[in-house]
Amino acid sequence: MNDTAILLIDHQVGLQALVKDFDTVGFQNNVLALASIAKELNLPVVITASVPEGPNGPLMPEILEMFPDVAVVSRHGEVNAWDNPEFRAAVKKTGRKQLIMAGIVTDVCVSFPALSAIEEGYQVFAAVDASGTFNEVVRYAAWDRMSQSGVQLMNWFSILCELTRDWRVHGPVMTDIILKHLPEYKNTMITFNQTQSTN
Amino acid sequence: MNDTAILLIDHQVGLQALVKDFDTVGFQNNVLALASIAKELNLPVVITASVPEGPNGPLMPEILEMFPDVAVVSRHGEVNAWDNPEFRAAVKKTGRKQLIMAGIVTDVCVSFPALSAIEEGYQVFAAVDASGTFNEVVRYAAWDRMSQSGVQLMNWFSILCELTRDWRVHGPVMTDIILKHLPEYKNTMITFNQTQSTN
Amino acid sequence: MNDTAILLIDHQVGLQALVKDFDTVGFQNNVLALASIAKELNLPVVITASVPEGPNGPLMPEILEMFPDVAVVSRHGEVNAWDNPEFRAAVKKTGRKQLIMAGIVTDVCVSFPALSAIEEGYQVFAAVDASGTFNEVVRYAAWDRMSQSGVQLMNWFSILCELTRDWRVHGPVMTDIILKHLPEYKNTMITFNQTQSTN
Amino acid sequence: MNDTAILLIDHQVGLQALVKDFDTVGFQNNVLALASIAKELNLPVVITASVPEGPNGPLMPEILEMFPDVAVVSRHGEVNAWDNPEFRAAVKKTGRKQLIMAGIVTDVCVSFPALSAIEEGYQVFAAVDASGTFNEVVRYAAWDRMSQSGVQLMNWFSILCELTRDWRVHGPVMTDIILKHLPEYKNTMITFNQTQSTN
Amino acid sequence: MNDTAILLIDHQVGLQALVKDFDTVGFQNNVLALASIAKELNLPVVITASVPEGPNGPLMPEILEMFPDVAVVSRHGEVNAWDNPEFRAAVKKTGRKQLIMAGIVTDVCVSFPALSAIEEGYQVFAAVDASGTFNEVVRYAAWDRMSQSGVQLMNWFSILCELTRDWRVHGPVMTDIILKHLPEYKNTMITFNQTQSTN
Amino acid sequence: MNDTAILLIDHQVGLQALVKDFDTVGFQNNVLALASIAKELNLPVVITASVPEGPNGPLMPEILEMFPDVAVVSRHGEVNAWDNPEFRAAVKKTGRKQLIMAGIVTDVCVSFPALSAIEEGYQVFAAVDASGTFNEVVRYAAWDRMSQSGVQLMNWFSILCELTRDWRVHGPVMTDIILKHLPEYKNTMITFNQTQSTN
Amino acid sequence: MNDTAILLIDHQVGLQALVKDFDTVGFQNNVLALASIAKELNLPVVITASVPEGPNGPLMPEILEMFPDVAVVSRHGEVNAWDNPEFRAAVKKTGRKQLIMAGIVTDVCVSFPALSAIEEGYQVFAAVDASGTFNEVVRYAAWDRMSQSGVQLMNWFSILCELTRDWRVHGPVMTDIILKHLPEYKNTMITFNQTQSTN
Amino acid sequence: MNDTAILLIDHQVGLQALVKDFDTVGFQNNVLALASIAKELNLPVVITASVPEGPNGPLMPEILEMFPDVAVVSRHGEVNAWDNPEFRAAVKKTGRKQLIMAGIVTDVCVSFPALSAIEEGYQVFAAVDASGTFNEVVRYAAWDRMSQSGVQLMNWFSILCELTRDWRVHGPVMTDIILKHLPEYKNTMITFNQTQSTN
Repeated sequence: MNDTAILLIDHQVGLQALVKDFDTVGFQNNVLALASIAKELNLPVVITASVPEGPNGPLMPEILEMFPDVAVVSRHGEVNAWDNPEFRAAVKKTGRKQLIMAGIVTDVCVSFPALSAIEEGYQVFAAVDASGTFNEVVRYAAWDRMSQSGVQLMNWFSILCELTRDWRVHGPVMTDIILKHLPEYKNTMITFNQTQSTN
Repeated sequence: MNDTAILLIDHQVGLQALVKDFDTVGFQNNVLALASIAKELNLPVVITASVPEGPNGPLMPEILEMFPDVAVVSRHGEVNAWDNPEFRAAVKKTGRKQLIMAGIVTDVCVSFPALSAIEEGYQVFAAVDASGTFNEVVRYAAWDRMSQSGVQLMNWFSILCELTRDWRVHGPVMTDIILKHLPEYKNTMITFNQTQSTN
Repeated sequence: MNDTAILLIDHQVGLQALVKDFDTVGFQNNVLALASIAKELNLPVVITASVPEGPNGPLMPEILEMFPDVAVVSRHGEVNAWDNPEFRAAVKKTGRKQLIMAGIVTDVCVSFPALSAIEEGYQVFAAVDASGTFNEVVRYAAWDRMSQSGVQLMNWFSILCELTRDWRVHGPVMTDIILKHLPEYKNTMITFNQTQSTN
Repeated sequence: MNDTAILLIDHQVGLQALVKDFDTVGFQNNVLALASIAKELNLPVVITASVPEGPNGPLMPEILEMFPDVAVVSRHGEVNAWDNPEFRAAVKKTGRKQLIMAGIVTDVCVSFPALSAIEEGYQVFAAVDASGTFNEVVRYAAWDRMSQSGVQLMNWFSILCELTRDWRVHGPVMTDIILKHLPEYKNTMITFNQTQSTN
Repeated sequence: MNDTAILLIDHQVGLQALVKDFDTVGFQNNVLALASIAKELNLPVVITASVPEGPNGPLMPEILEMFPDVAVVSRHGEVNAWDNPEFRAAVKKTGRKQLIMAGIVTDVCVSFPALSAIEEGYQVFAAVDASGTFNEVVRYAAWDRMSQSGVQLMNWFSILCELTRDWRVHGPVMTDIILKHLPEYKNTMITFNQTQSTN
Repeated sequence: MNDTAILLIDHQVGLQALVKDFDTVGFQNNVLALASIAKELNLPVVITASVPEGPNGPLMPEILEMFPDVAVVSRHGEVNAWDNPEFRAAVKKTGRKQLIMAGIVTDVCVSFPALSAIEEGYQVFAAVDASGTFNEVVRYAAWDRMSQSGVQLMNWFSILCELTRDWRVHGPVMTDIILKHLPEYKNTMITFNQTQSTN
Repeated sequence: MNDTAILLIDHQVGLQALVKDFDTVGFQNNVLALASIAKELNLPVVITASVPEGPNGPLMPEILEMFPDVAVVSRHGEVNAWDNPEFRAAVKKTGRKQLIMAGIVTDVCVSFPALSAIEEGYQVFAAVDASGTFNEVVRYAAWDRMSQSGVQLMNWFSILCELTRDWRVHGPVMTDIILKHLPEYKNTMITFNQTQSTN
Repeated sequence: MNDTAILLIDHQVGLQALVKDFDTVGFQNNVLALASIAKELNLPVVITASVPEGPNGPLMPEILEMFPDVAVVSRHGEVNAWDNPEFRAAVKKTGRKQLIMAGIVTDVCVSFPALSAIEEGYQVFAAVDASGTFNEVVRYAAWDRMSQSGVQLMNWFSILCELTRDWRVHGPVMTDIILKHLPEYKNTMITFNQTQSTN
């Protein structure tokens, strides 16, 4: 956890119209769950957007509200965020060597910087359920390309668990994120707690 | 709209473990969207739960918070809510003849009272995306049985539109519900509004 | 419940190789759940098999064990069980007018006697998740044909609920069948009961 | 064909972000195929858009270019196009009693005017593959509601064939639309024609 | 069986490129199974093709070989076979009032003559697994339209069973068709017979 | 077989509400089949549960009954069972170097200890059909991560076959497990045996 | 082609009831297409069956007829065909180092000998569409395990093409197999040839 | 971009009848998008067809029109384009070492030359959404075989982005291709631009 940073790439409202491999409600939940992990565990976060003043639109407002102190790197041309010096500098400044990346679309905005970071010696994790794209064919091709290059594919829940490792230490954070973003688990907790309290 | 009531049946946290024909995040969003319609349009609401002190668990807390003044009808045995005199009385007391029903599970907790209400002369609408069950086989069998009996199958968004009919009259309510529960539309609105404001 | 009989048609082990619209483990669970409903509610049961000494094979042994006193009607040629006088007599002898039918394959062994019984004035319910066939195209064509003829499509769980109607009266039977055949619900009950007992 | 009009309802570029039950490339192809049928068979067309100056956006530009002489009915509040007097007048002015409707979203913008028109005695056909919505659950609920009210569900190709009926009369139009919108058939025609010409 | 005819409509090799709702190997098996039923039960057959000398191509050669004495009705323009006087005459000449239809594509070549025949008082059965079309959306829309008009949806196996009704009378024919077209059942029969013969 | 141990991780009734990539009936069957393999082949078994007195609930009762002499390792905080000294000690005590792991959820409770064990030089097999998680996206990402690290993905049936290798040696055990957990095979055996005995 | 042998493993009629990841008609077509490749290209073939006198049943009769001179290796216990000395000898006797394997079930009868052969230095190709198993989860786990061990995954059509390489040399064989097993291609050829001949 | 060539292999109209893993409209769109990338970025293109005067038919006419100056390599026997000296020469003549390949069918016409080129030291990218084949089983087997050999799997959009890298340099080309082939993005751009122009 002390060597990890989270990179949120182009989660812009206009670009979400390109995401068809997830239901939008579920996808936004995944993205915000990942952002909450960064927030609640105080991980360094690098956020970037591609031409947000154009048709791609601004970043999801919930992300902007969650990180009021993070300066969003607005790119004005580079497709691969890694090509943008400001972005690379922000990543470098975190001092972390384990990068968790998510973005829209998986095959470009996640895959390109993931491969670039691998080449520069970072350990890279793609948060695949907080990253979306056109369809399943594109998703699995992008996964294969990243995986064969050494990127590890993870989901937000396993990222949360890998970073926290122990309920005794991080129980409140884990519970808080689960209550907000994992309703199956929340439902179980509610019933359990009610039963406890009525006994 | 003046002749419509909404009936929320057994949206209990324990019963949600039986719902497999929807993703849980998406399903809860649908249920709360339907509840918001009732709330924001001031429709009479009847809420019931089956043995909420047992393994079925309490109602979704968000529903309880949304309707603090509605007395939940706790049933202690009747599977079909319509068999419960208190529930029938609550429905009758609304004075409405058009009943929109949703619940868990579709094939029992929605289908049974829907058929009972049809028999008593009500016009019944099943909110099928705020109602869940075990799998698609069960879902479509339940749909067919209801449809052949005269129940009309609708989704929360078409219910919202049918009740409001005109953006000039109900625009703020429609927008509010869409911003909370329909992120595809919300995304479009954000981009549009940003563009407007920056011009 | 006092006017209902359950008809189990050709649930033979050899014929199950034709059932591809359900996973076999799940399908057998559904069939045995329906059989348990008949058993535990003491409903009259009519069981038939088509040439069980041939490649169709014997009935599922669990069914035979469950109803040791029911004389299985072995048909030696009639595809439609309703064409067999012994079967029709057995149905008539139950004195019931509501017939719940399940069998293999849905499009023949359920659909044919269902349509025949409708014509003779019975009220017919097809237990669609205890009935299997070649694929989904055949399933939904058979459903449509039955539905348009007045057959009501139900699943074993909604049949259980419609017959019992009240947990206060039939709670033990309902619980027993759920514990054996509906593991999602069973899991919830186990956690609940453990919590209760440890308080 | 002499008693038919085609109604294109809210095929706006912003609303297409709500359509998830079709691939966008395929969906736009279906919409334009239906529009081409109207164009090439000189059927009267009524086109409407809901608040096109807002986030819903303008109509697909290809539709506007195809019908430069049709005055688009811009609605500024009515969800159901049938509630708009200008729209109803435009339909009435066609003098046709068979209405083919398509639009976004199926469960609202098609279903509502379809039911309204049925009530007023029109014969209504929903062009279901030129109409899109959120997901398959919503699609099939909307289909069921329309179908039970007497709306006939068709696709653009069967509409083309029902209107033209005879290759000897309408062969050029049929071929033209097929070449543009049905590549499977086009491929067959190309091979055939090449073979012919090289012999 | 004495009042039934089978109509095979446009099962042409070129048109099969339009059929995407079935795997081609499985679809051809279904078509030939239906044709075999007609052949082996000596049912009257009416066969038609649309412009077979053009890109639609000739009928499947297996069909032509199976019915050397049936004069194929070549249509040179009529989309709906029922619009062709020669076809209607051939149907009428069979003297049968129950028509089983199959063809390519379901939504046009089956649906149109099915509706026409219903209007003229025939009882019509669509053999839905020997009829193919572009995709599932089109298939289910066509099913709904036919079903609501009174067409009964069946599959080749249930047609075989409904026509033969009794293994003691038609066992050899049923077995023969099953051995050729239903490998799941064939496999069961082989094992059974081997076991028998080795005992 | 002499170098293999089976690790059952967090198959708790409360956690099963998180498993959506399998039907619950089928999933429990797979888990119990794997457990039966351990039981009937006398393989050493290590069982652990995460906070079973909390909302995760107790282990599946069938597992507890099957291994009355195995001391369940209750973890009170460690997400990765491998972080728990008692668990590691139990694994080490088996003296086996080939570890077959299954658990809930795949991406955490299986993947984490699998990677840990690989790092320590064990040969690891994930029993992927006795391990469940939220959805297919998460499942396949977890598979990819494990596979790229050297974990071999297997299913319970291939594990059974790899361990037994020869029907002449282990026929009774294989048959027993198949009769309980693989109904397709059981059905074939029943027909075969009946035929044998009646000859 | 001169260094290739084809191994057909346990394509027995009883075992086909276990194959659920393919439609049976399509699966048998794939198996026979692969067998035809061996037959028509005169490749050495090794065929084995597991206890064919028991419930697994005999090999598909079409395979037996196709290779009357090949002595089938009947195994009486070994699950992995490679454990059977007679089978290994038959493979060795072919003198080939490239082995194409297919069988039922993929995860056992293909995967086990494939891994064994790889270990002994053979180059192994799994004909994945002529190999079947319980479901897609098992299929893809087996694929992954084989692929990671160096087995190359192919389908019968690409095997045919890789072996023949040139239509000028092997055109008649390729055409013959395509006409029998690839109806999409056959349809195209029929239309083309008819057009040719009528010009 | 200066070291890249695009190879279009056997995108013939007759062969498209073999492509079932994509909708035809969407597939042709993908193929033409890839061709447009080559065209608009002035990349060297090598185009080949297998026996285009036979049933495979001519190349898609849109491709031929797009590259009037490219001499199509007509092969008269070689299945693997790489076996054709003229094709190899054309590739060599481009002087590029990064080859992007697409074709019909994926498992043969793409996979074979991809593996051949890898062996000769080229870096190979398969454009998987501009390559089609019989079904998903074949697609994913072919992907696995290519991926394990070092071929990188990409889609046309990520290829476009990887080649252009910067909107400031290649914005017009990117926009042009997106407007023609990516309607989701086009829709967003239209709304944005309209809003801009009306302010």
